[in-house]
Amino acid sequence: MKSLDETHDAGQKSWILSANVNSCDFPLQNLPFGVFRRHKSQESFRGGVAIGDEIVDLGAAVDTGLFSGDARIAAEAAATSTLNTFMSLGPAYRIALRQTLSALLRQGAARQEDMRACLVPQTEAEYALPATIGDFSDFYSSLHHATNVGALFRPDNPVLPNFKWLPVGYHGRSSSIFVSGKTFRRPSGQLKSPDTPAPEYRPSRRLDYEAELGIFVGRGNATGQPVDMDSAEEHVFGVSILNDWSARDIQAWEYQPLGPFLAKSFTTTVSPWIVTLEALAPFRSPWTRDPTDPQPLPHLLGSDTRERGAIDIHVEVLLQTARMRSDDIAPIKLSVSRFIDSYWTISQLITHQSSNGCNLCPGDLLGTGTLSGPERDSLACLLELSRGGQTPIALPNGEIRTFLEDGDTVIMRAYCERDGQVRIGFGQCVGTVLPAD
Amino acid sequence: MKSLDETHDAGQKSWILSANVNSCDFPLQNLPFGVFRRHKSQESFRGGVAIGDEIVDLGAAVDTGLFSGDARIAAEAAATSTLNTFMSLGPAYRIALRQTLSALLRQGAARQEDMRACLVPQTEAEYALPATIGDFSDFYSSLHHATNVGALFRPDNPVLPNFKWLPVGYHGRSSSIFVSGKTFRRPSGQLKSPDTPAPEYRPSRRLDYEAELGIFVGRGNATGQPVDMDSAEEHVFGVSILNDWSARDIQAWEYQPLGPFLAKSFTTTVSPWIVTLEALAPFRSPWTRDPTDPQPLPHLLGSDTRERGAIDIHVEVLLQTARMRSDDIAPIKLSVSRFIDSYWTISQLITHQSSNGCNLCPGDLLGTGTLSGPERDSLACLLELSRGGQTPIALPNGEIRTFLEDGDTVIMRAYCERDGQVRIGFGQCVGTVLPAD
Repeated sequence: MKSLDETHDAGQKSWILSANVNSCDFPLQNLPFGVFRRHKSQESFRGGVAIGDEIVDLGAAVDTGLFSGDARIAAEAAATSTLNTFMSLGPAYRIALRQTLSALLRQGAARQEDMRACLVPQTEAEYALPATIGDFSDFYSSLHHATNVGALFRPDNPVLPNFKWLPVGYHGRSSSIFVSGKTFRRPSGQLKSPDTPAPEYRPSRRLDYEAELGIFVGRGNATGQPVDMDSAEEHVFGVSILNDWSARDIQAWEYQPLGPFLAKSFTTTVSPWIVTLEALAPFRSPWTRDPTDPQPLPHLLGSDTRERGAIDIHVEVLLQTARMRSDDIAPIKLSVSRFIDSYWTISQLITHQSSNGCNLCPGDLLGTGTLSGPERDSLACLLELSRGGQTPIALPNGEIRTFLEDGDTVIMRAYCERDGQVRIGFGQCVGTVLPAD
Repeated sequence: MKSLDETHDAGQKSWILSANVNSCDFPLQNLPFGVFRRHKSQESFRGGVAIGDEIVDLGAAVDTGLFSGDARIAAEAAATSTLNTFMSLGPAYRIALRQTLSALLRQGAARQEDMRACLVPQTEAEYALPATIGDFSDFYSSLHHATNVGALFRPDNPVLPNFKWLPVGYHGRSSSIFVSGKTFRRPSGQLKSPDTPAPEYRPSRRLDYEAELGIFVGRGNATGQPVDMDSAEEHVFGVSILNDWSARDIQAWEYQPLGPFLAKSFTTTVSPWIVTLEALAPFRSPWTRDPTDPQPLPHLLGSDTRERGAIDIHVEVLLQTARMRSDDIAPIKLSVSRFIDSYWTISQLITHQSSNGCNLCPGDLLGTGTLSGPERDSLACLLELSRGGQTPIALPNGEIRTFLEDGDTVIMRAYCERDGQVRIGFGQCVGTVLPAD
């Protein structure tokens, strides 16, 4: 898991030519997992791997007889309607499957026609959640986001003392997580303005997105057995894009003292593809902590955290309003931020969450929290971009936004790019706001 | 669901004689559902109904041919390894099954020998969680608890302004919910005392229980479709006992601004039996709101909330320390409180949780929050009983407690009693603290 192998070789191309295009999200070196079926078909949802413009149907691929040993066990588990069983197998099986797929899909591979018969074009596919998500936790990993948002909610006390000592997080709602493409009604809730004596129940006026990454748990841990930092990545399956839609006015009224609740639980969206830790290996980066800040307690610092704890993933947010859509104007980019700017690493989130003995289970989802960076164009939600709604954002077609309007579509993309490496993409995470009832 | 029928007739007795004892938790009028198997057997866990000292094995009962129509459909669904499918059927099927079971188990019923062959003694049984719990939410329904605990965490501002307008709640952890009988290690976590500059990672020193009731969701609602107050009970399956074990020192350091997280997620315990809304019908009570307090917004007030929104359930907490156990001293009662003292009703919790369009699913669990009452002997956690650890509690054998010690067993019981009605019990919810590693 930790070292690069032939599956990362930037010189390798695929016989699926769309995978070799420079801007492609899904080159041979990526091989992300998801659950799909042909659009509007009666087929069962089943596991697949994205490559170029195609999906490898894993069940069909197993039937070719080209998979053996651990790779076959892994492919059979991944061919079912959720990836949970595959996730539970841990990294060795996942790596074996990656290596077999890489060998079968590269230029010059034998029996290409057998594998070609297992491909489904992505244009013909629809997706399901890649896993049954037992528990969803959402963190607050970006100091930039915590500082900006904290200043709006608590001007005197934006970043609380615990932030720099532990990854602040809370439990989220699993049932309302949907795969990319979801439309949803603007939520209603109790809203209270400071100048009225009573709240009222009405549609949110301050609907927002939050650009995050979602970490899917692979192998679980037993209850009462915390996961240490040097083992944490053995419990990580991979990473997707996550939009933690938020109703800021519901949140402001409800969130004390027990945290966000209905402000978040109406809809959460994840991208259909999960990029594995293996695919992200070339983009590992040193993790630094400002020397004037508290350094991590020993249980939150692994033997290689400082050397390679971070991963350099870019996350973009684009907006297309209803009017832009009807005028055929392309989505405009609102922000791009980098996971490398996160205050906490993936392993620190896993280790912290299990540090009380809590059992993580295959398919559990951990959100990073809104991944805002230090610059204005790296602010990853409207609450920050519009400074709490005080500074409207002018769109190129003359529309303005403080928060989301009905008909707005939010598109999130993520990717890794580095000199000498093949670009690794995450696809997209898309959602559209419908009017309240 | 709302009216009493022959299944509530206090004059009816069962041919299972242990069900007719006055102190019995499970008379003919109760018929709670759970999932069991014979202790230490290789049998599959399966649905059953408690009566007297026995369990009706629903799968075996269906095989007698004595169930027909909706009752048969319900019994077949309830005979599986989780009650989720049965829960999803909604109240009509549940009521049909209750009526058939009541008729088959009452004195004078035909074919008693066929049914007797379906009984498993409770002394020979072990239990599983009655449902796969997709999402667990925990509320904060007791004004007494909120006032007492708020005063400890925020002396200047114990009860926040939102408390009297909406049922404050937060998302909990599903994976760490276990059925009664669980032992668990004292959790570790980051603790920080006010007089040290840095936190440390170590075992909790302020481990506590919280006596709650757990509401299991029956039929779910579609996403984007809030449940109104007059429909809310159609989405409730029943009620169990819930112990929301809490590490107060972990909580104090972590909980701002996003709420409790690792202070709660190490273990939560529920009783094996779920008492249905039908069994609780004779204990419905008027729901009152202090006229000087805000009255509920219209969406949180049903047509019969004031007349019968409350349910009079008593919840007891008992403690047996390791020394008491070895000296053969019976558990001592620490508190008894009443759900009738709750500030919010079950329907208000359901309606509020779905008011933003959040989809509730069969088997979801809603905790009421700690059910403290107004009197000293109705304080339902040690944090309140010991006034934040300042006032040790003297036990009859000379031991003292501020918080839980290793080896302590906490036993919770619940029951309904009312003149002219048969007592309805919930069984017990038991857990024991083991030392940290």
